[in-house]
Amino acid sequence: MQKQQAVILVSGGMDSCVTAAIAHKSYRLAFLHVTYGQRTEQRELLAFTQIADFYKVEDRLTVNLQHLKFIGGSSLTDETMPIPECGFLQSKPGCTASAIPSTYVPFRNAHLLCSATSWAEVLKATKIFIGAVEEDSSGYPDCREIFYQAFNKAIEMGTRPETHVEIVTPLIHMKKSDIVRMGVELGAPLHLTWSCYQQCEKACGKCESCVLRLKGFEGAGVKDPIPYDTQIKGVLTDLR
Amino acid sequence: MQKQQAVILVSGGMDSCVTAAIAHKSYRLAFLHVTYGQRTEQRELLAFTQIADFYKVEDRLTVNLQHLKFIGGSSLTDETMPIPECGFLQSKPGCTASAIPSTYVPFRNAHLLCSATSWAEVLKATKIFIGAVEEDSSGYPDCREIFYQAFNKAIEMGTRPETHVEIVTPLIHMKKSDIVRMGVELGAPLHLTWSCYQQCEKACGKCESCVLRLKGFEGAGVKDPIPYDTQIKGVLTDLR
Repeated sequence: MQKQQAVILVSGGMDSCVTAAIAHKSYRLAFLHVTYGQRTEQRELLAFTQIADFYKVEDRLTVNLQHLKFIGGSSLTDETMPIPECGFLQSKPGCTASAIPSTYVPFRNAHLLCSATSWAEVLKATKIFIGAVEEDSSGYPDCREIFYQAFNKAIEMGTRPETHVEIVTPLIHMKKSDIVRMGVELGAPLHLTWSCYQQCEKACGKCESCVLRLKGFEGAGVKDPIPYDTQIKGVLTDLR
Repeated sequence: MQKQQAVILVSGGMDSCVTAAIAHKSYRLAFLHVTYGQRTEQRELLAFTQIADFYKVEDRLTVNLQHLKFIGGSSLTDETMPIPECGFLQSKPGCTASAIPSTYVPFRNAHLLCSATSWAEVLKATKIFIGAVEEDSSGYPDCREIFYQAFNKAIEMGTRPETHVEIVTPLIHMKKSDIVRMGVELGAPLHLTWSCYQQCEKACGKCESCVLRLKGFEGAGVKDPIPYDTQIKGVLTDLR
């Protein structure tokens, strides 16, 4: 019997790559990538394509949500706003106003889930996998499990009665170091991933995404296989 | 004291026009229009602009969700699928598989709400008005009040803690004829609206959207001010 299909949201970063590796065990994969005018979108798209090739994924879709750039409100899409460096890690965990960094794109993950849901409904896929991580997510409200639970209810109410699509968040309560370990264990192509918010040739090693990633590799005792612009040793020292 | 701001989803159709007229009483208006490769999008955009001019709306945004066309699954965006004529009205009301016509765009209204929510979060608007109508909505699952209730929860969970945005659906339990009456009462510019799914110069009078609209005007005892391609009399006779 053919496996059921699942739509995997693949940014090209480490978390989505490990999520794809998890889903690959039980589902036929359909890969969905979203660009929205983020600074490093070409590099992310390359990572997406290479990970899709790695898993021999036939159903691939890239959607352009460029209206997120026009709507604005985030340093990730607005080049007049600076990308914060790792000082953001000093803010308290949890979801208070001050804890949410400027890279938060208002309600972004809901847009991703909408595209995934519409596509899943057309493909008759039964799951949507997203590599959201609650603890390490810089306090983004749309990375919390309660958000995905609420969104699942919206999917149930807003799709055809014969459609049964559910969001799955296998990494939601994992630490970045556990994600690295799991990726290694599952043979996920971490060398093909890209996480940096700032640069495209070598990762900057300084933006919040790089810092979280490096911290994860350090915690797992694994060397990050991608190239960095700075001395990783130095970056890691800053974190202690 | 300045009024609070509300984002109004304005397709350019009659329902969104009357919704704008309702919101206009209590809020500063921000108008959001969405194109997604529907056949009549230029005509709808004209209606949007003219209604925005009528209400002297300063904050206007048009977002292009063309990925809905690529995702497919609807006769509204796929020109190889025929638009059903009014025979669809014979299907049972309620949300069973067979009752949902091919014009349903999978999970479409969720995409509209996502754009509205992101924009509302940036504008610090407190309400999102959408002219969804449950009874006359051809059984679309994303036109039901329970869907909007579920989506409100997703907004609460997925936005900044200081963001308080709520979806308002003032027409949800109204009949089309009551909407026409309310539009007339509030002085809504119904003559600027466009509902036809099929044509741009004169409304076809036959597609489900035209038929529902004409039925509404007939029920309200008001002449529809827009031009039709067919003898309206004949169309209405078919409905009895």
